[in-house]
Amino acid sequence: MSLLKLILGRRLANEEYVERKIGAFEGVPAMGLDGLGSASYGPEAAMTVLIPLGAAGTASIHIVMLPILALLVILYVSYRQTIRAYPSNGGAYTVSKANLGTNASLLAASALMIDYVLNVAVGISAGVGALTSAIPALHPYTLALCLAILVLVTIMNLRGTMDAGRAWALPTYLFVASLALILAIGVYKTIMAGGEPPPVVPPPSSPRPTEVISIWLLLRSFAAGCTAMTGVEAVSNGVSAFREPVVTRAHRTLGAICVILGLLLGGITYLVRSYGVTAMDQTQDGYQSILSQLAGAVIGRGPFYYVAIASVLCILCLSANTSFVDFPRVCRLVASDDFLPRPFAAVGRRLVFSVGILYLAGAAGLLLIAFGGITDRLIPLFAIGAFLTFTMSQLGMVVHWRGELQRARTEREQRQHRASLAINAIGMATTGIALAIILVAKFVEGAWITLLVIPCVLFLLRTVKRYYVELDAQMRTEARLDLRDAHPPIVLVVTETWNRLTDRALQFALRLSPDVIAVHLMKLGGPDVREQRRLLRQRWSEHVEQPARIAGHRPPPLVLLEAHYRRIAGPLLQFLAQVEKDNRGRAIAVLIPEIVKEHWWQYLLHGQRARRLRAALLRYGGSHIVVINIPWYLEEPHIEQGLEQEEISAPLAETVTKR
Amino acid sequence: MSLLKLILGRRLANEEYVERKIGAFEGVPAMGLDGLGSASYGPEAAMTVLIPLGAAGTASIHIVMLPILALLVILYVSYRQTIRAYPSNGGAYTVSKANLGTNASLLAASALMIDYVLNVAVGISAGVGALTSAIPALHPYTLALCLAILVLVTIMNLRGTMDAGRAWALPTYLFVASLALILAIGVYKTIMAGGEPPPVVPPPSSPRPTEVISIWLLLRSFAAGCTAMTGVEAVSNGVSAFREPVVTRAHRTLGAICVILGLLLGGITYLVRSYGVTAMDQTQDGYQSILSQLAGAVIGRGPFYYVAIASVLCILCLSANTSFVDFPRVCRLVASDDFLPRPFAAVGRRLVFSVGILYLAGAAGLLLIAFGGITDRLIPLFAIGAFLTFTMSQLGMVVHWRGELQRARTEREQRQHRASLAINAIGMATTGIALAIILVAKFVEGAWITLLVIPCVLFLLRTVKRYYVELDAQMRTEARLDLRDAHPPIVLVVTETWNRLTDRALQFALRLSPDVIAVHLMKLGGPDVREQRRLLRQRWSEHVEQPARIAGHRPPPLVLLEAHYRRIAGPLLQFLAQVEKDNRGRAIAVLIPEIVKEHWWQYLLHGQRARRLRAALLRYGGSHIVVINIPWYLEEPHIEQGLEQEEISAPLAETVTKR
Repeated sequence: MSLLKLILGRRLANEEYVERKIGAFEGVPAMGLDGLGSASYGPEAAMTVLIPLGAAGTASIHIVMLPILALLVILYVSYRQTIRAYPSNGGAYTVSKANLGTNASLLAASALMIDYVLNVAVGISAGVGALTSAIPALHPYTLALCLAILVLVTIMNLRGTMDAGRAWALPTYLFVASLALILAIGVYKTIMAGGEPPPVVPPPSSPRPTEVISIWLLLRSFAAGCTAMTGVEAVSNGVSAFREPVVTRAHRTLGAICVILGLLLGGITYLVRSYGVTAMDQTQDGYQSILSQLAGAVIGRGPFYYVAIASVLCILCLSANTSFVDFPRVCRLVASDDFLPRPFAAVGRRLVFSVGILYLAGAAGLLLIAFGGITDRLIPLFAIGAFLTFTMSQLGMVVHWRGELQRARTEREQRQHRASLAINAIGMATTGIALAIILVAKFVEGAWITLLVIPCVLFLLRTVKRYYVELDAQMRTEARLDLRDAHPPIVLVVTETWNRLTDRALQFALRLSPDVIAVHLMKLGGPDVREQRRLLRQRWSEHVEQPARIAGHRPPPLVLLEAHYRRIAGPLLQFLAQVEKDNRGRAIAVLIPEIVKEHWWQYLLHGQRARRLRAALLRYGGSHIVVINIPWYLEEPHIEQGLEQEEISAPLAETVTKR
Repeated sequence: MSLLKLILGRRLANEEYVERKIGAFEGVPAMGLDGLGSASYGPEAAMTVLIPLGAAGTASIHIVMLPILALLVILYVSYRQTIRAYPSNGGAYTVSKANLGTNASLLAASALMIDYVLNVAVGISAGVGALTSAIPALHPYTLALCLAILVLVTIMNLRGTMDAGRAWALPTYLFVASLALILAIGVYKTIMAGGEPPPVVPPPSSPRPTEVISIWLLLRSFAAGCTAMTGVEAVSNGVSAFREPVVTRAHRTLGAICVILGLLLGGITYLVRSYGVTAMDQTQDGYQSILSQLAGAVIGRGPFYYVAIASVLCILCLSANTSFVDFPRVCRLVASDDFLPRPFAAVGRRLVFSVGILYLAGAAGLLLIAFGGITDRLIPLFAIGAFLTFTMSQLGMVVHWRGELQRARTEREQRQHRASLAINAIGMATTGIALAIILVAKFVEGAWITLLVIPCVLFLLRTVKRYYVELDAQMRTEARLDLRDAHPPIVLVVTETWNRLTDRALQFALRLSPDVIAVHLMKLGGPDVREQRRLLRQRWSEHVEQPARIAGHRPPPLVLLEAHYRRIAGPLLQFLAQVEKDNRGRAIAVLIPEIVKEHWWQYLLHGQRARRLRAALLRYGGSHIVVINIPWYLEEPHIEQGLEQEEISAPLAETVTKR
């Protein structure tokens, strides 16, 4: 227990909920790393598609990046609106549920959940991939590094979103500052040099063009570049993590992420063209990323270069954190509607939804292990979930504003709503088009897998819901407490020999009911059993039957059962069936005395008799039986031993309703 | 369950015990492989020590082997006597216990248990070592092969000693037949050739001598050769496995093993000298074992050579089986006296002591993994346990015969007992001397480890005993059932909401006692809890309190507890402590309604609330409480589902003692 406390921190009380909420300072590192990190690979992905154009690819990169920047602006404005309209949670699931119905909301949830799991696996392995290509000596440890980072991010998020946000604040702001500085210097130099600045370290020359520019190539480049936007929806799904005033802080976080991302993307696009940087084939020797070429060209290979590149690596490795903040919150919402197992909605030790965090870590860990820490092949699956979510969310908002429009009273309100509707409609149209382009461009590369997996997840969600609906229907009752049957139960007492344990069990049994039967299991056949039987009977008569009769009780009979197969549960279940048949409708209580194991080594010294018996009886006994455990302690425990340290100091608040 | 049945076979009834006993045919493969297999490595070990003598070593091998053969004869005769004197079990533990007292018997048991564990690890790794040196391609899989054989032998012995005996009968008798044939041909050729037969494939020439013969070298060679005898005590420890007449069958098995072993050792010694075979250094390239050289010299490298060598490998790999037969039986005896955990004495599914088998497999598996499947370094530790056991057993028999001698009436009896005493005394002296030689010769090589481990095991056995003595002292009572306290218990009912489960729990609670308190845990604080609380109170009043009052019961109050830390057990334990303080000495029953999980996936859909609560209450509740489980089923089970197939057909034999 103390190890858990060391790793996760002390147990937090419900009352501390408010203090655990975050502001924009923690919000940007906690939710923004997916978005910010994509500044480093989004332009790279777009330019890699253009490699066959040679230098012409670099010259035409703005044709691809400007629409992406425009899309970013549209997303920013429309998510601002969404957060204001749904201040408790503005995620795609909530918006779709409110405006488009259950099916749409489940589709959005499935897409989101898949997207988040993929983001963890792809994010970590991309980060580690960049790290090992920078330090090739680490290459053999790729998978171990991936899993270590996964464990680190998992633990930090189990400690709480605030802890994670604070832990990653330093690398995040270092990354932003160093990249911004490089870009600023680069832009200044470009302007000073009249558009063609001399590079400090010249980037490798462009490859010879092998293709000419085409719409299809530009569209594929656009689809690839869109991965730069996958983290933008994060804030809307994580709204519940913010302190009051929620909307302001969420807006501030979303704004910070989008503005930084926009500036970085814009700056990179501008400088790539002025310095003539082209993407390089990753599989070739001497590969350098766009950012590395750019940093070299602008500031040379000094210490600052290495600080900047290190911060980029750090951010890439930690981009999974966004999923760890949002996935559990999305799952919680879905679980509250009974579409996911209810434990997803349980608040854990540190006031976060620990079950969701652990499932996410488990799923991502399995993916990483299955692919050996190299998840390049999963990248095509990746953007679809995000853009499907964008589109669903915008569509939901369009419906939302249409409803508001009808309810609007004043001219001014109508105008406002119409403007909002227009923004979300434009957003929907553009993200929808982007989704279509991505789908077509990446279909054969693996996007079809996502289209297969989404219906499976949908089916799973629906199955879970069906289970809970059935469960609740069976459990629900409007009837009042029925006390007509006041028969005491028949009590079976499982005994091994006459000792204090049996004594206590019989005392309790005879207090409950006049109908007590003691059951003894003869475990092995053979001649010595007869002698054992005689002895048992004699002691029973002397120690139990006589005193019971004197005290005015009906003496409990001793039933000896033969365990032909040395299984303790079998004969008892058979006997139970017989008692049940002879006493139709009466409750049967089976009393199991049990030596409580206080130390781990006692599990080696005692059999699992009581536990096995209880499990079998509860599993197969049927609704007429109850199982009563009578504990026996070698050392009488103090109840305080069962409390956690925090609980001992906390007073027990109780309310009693007597009437 | 059906998988278990497939692997281990159906569950055997107690009544089948007799049919599962074995005769000499199964006894030799089951218990003899340790002994027989050592024919292949005993002479080899002795001759390896003599390598520095060159050809002179081969010439003087009989000086070492004849005492070993004499020792074998002495052991055979004295173990025959032991088995007759202790027909239920003639192992060193039993004999020492009866004649030398508890301390000596525990010493013998410790030595035996260590010996058996080492035998498994060393036997399997030696077998696999021989296999991989014959087929070098298998070398990378050494550990995997070791573990695979361990699993195979474990499963066979979990199926029963008879199954193991029958499974290994073919390789055992093939080994005996082929080795006997080779030796017979060799002896015939030697005699025909007047002592110097021409070899078919000449053995490699002897190395040049680097030392001259010395007593110390011969003693070390003797000590090494004594490993050939480590399996001879096996039959005496496994007597209980034999069919009636037990003594005859045990004698027959012991005789077969000793005669075969003696002939093989004698034959090998004779032929090694006549063909001039010398041991080779195992670490050198082109290494050939003595048996391989001998077989090549006698019959050449035809198909029969390969059959013989394959059977030798097979026997080496399976020599661990002896331990699997005897270790569980020794542990069972020790456990019956409470020096080992009692589960060691439990008869398993297939009427063998499964717990002992699994512990043996586990311990040997750990050794194999720790040493990577190469356990050469454990060999020096090995013979000590066996010879310590021999000596203890003989010593016990000497004491036994002295007692018998005093009780003897007739002259004839006296004479018989005196002869028996003499045999065991000679046996004791020779094994004692051999033990001393082995100790001195192998002390620095690692024998000291055994001398360190034995006291540790002794301490462990004594600690276990102390635990059980204390346990029994606490549990034992001669008092009669005390029924003066007839107060019904206070019943706490844990509720979540008003549903059928709560309904049934309350019905049962009100049947038990007029003092019922319902406890509800409010899991999360916040404003919505107030509304929840009001609703709960309203429903409680309507559904529970009113009908209870109408039925003439005291209406059970509803206590609402705040779970500040979202741990369900904490506040309940605190409340329990309070109830206990307010009602000193009264029994408290905590009633936990529980949805029974009938399928594995339900564990994902439900929390572990009931299980966790039960565990915490039983662990820390103290001896005033009992825990009552009320099961709720989504599908009402049939009791037959809880029975194994064999049990369904077996009728329930029961005896009732009414008076």
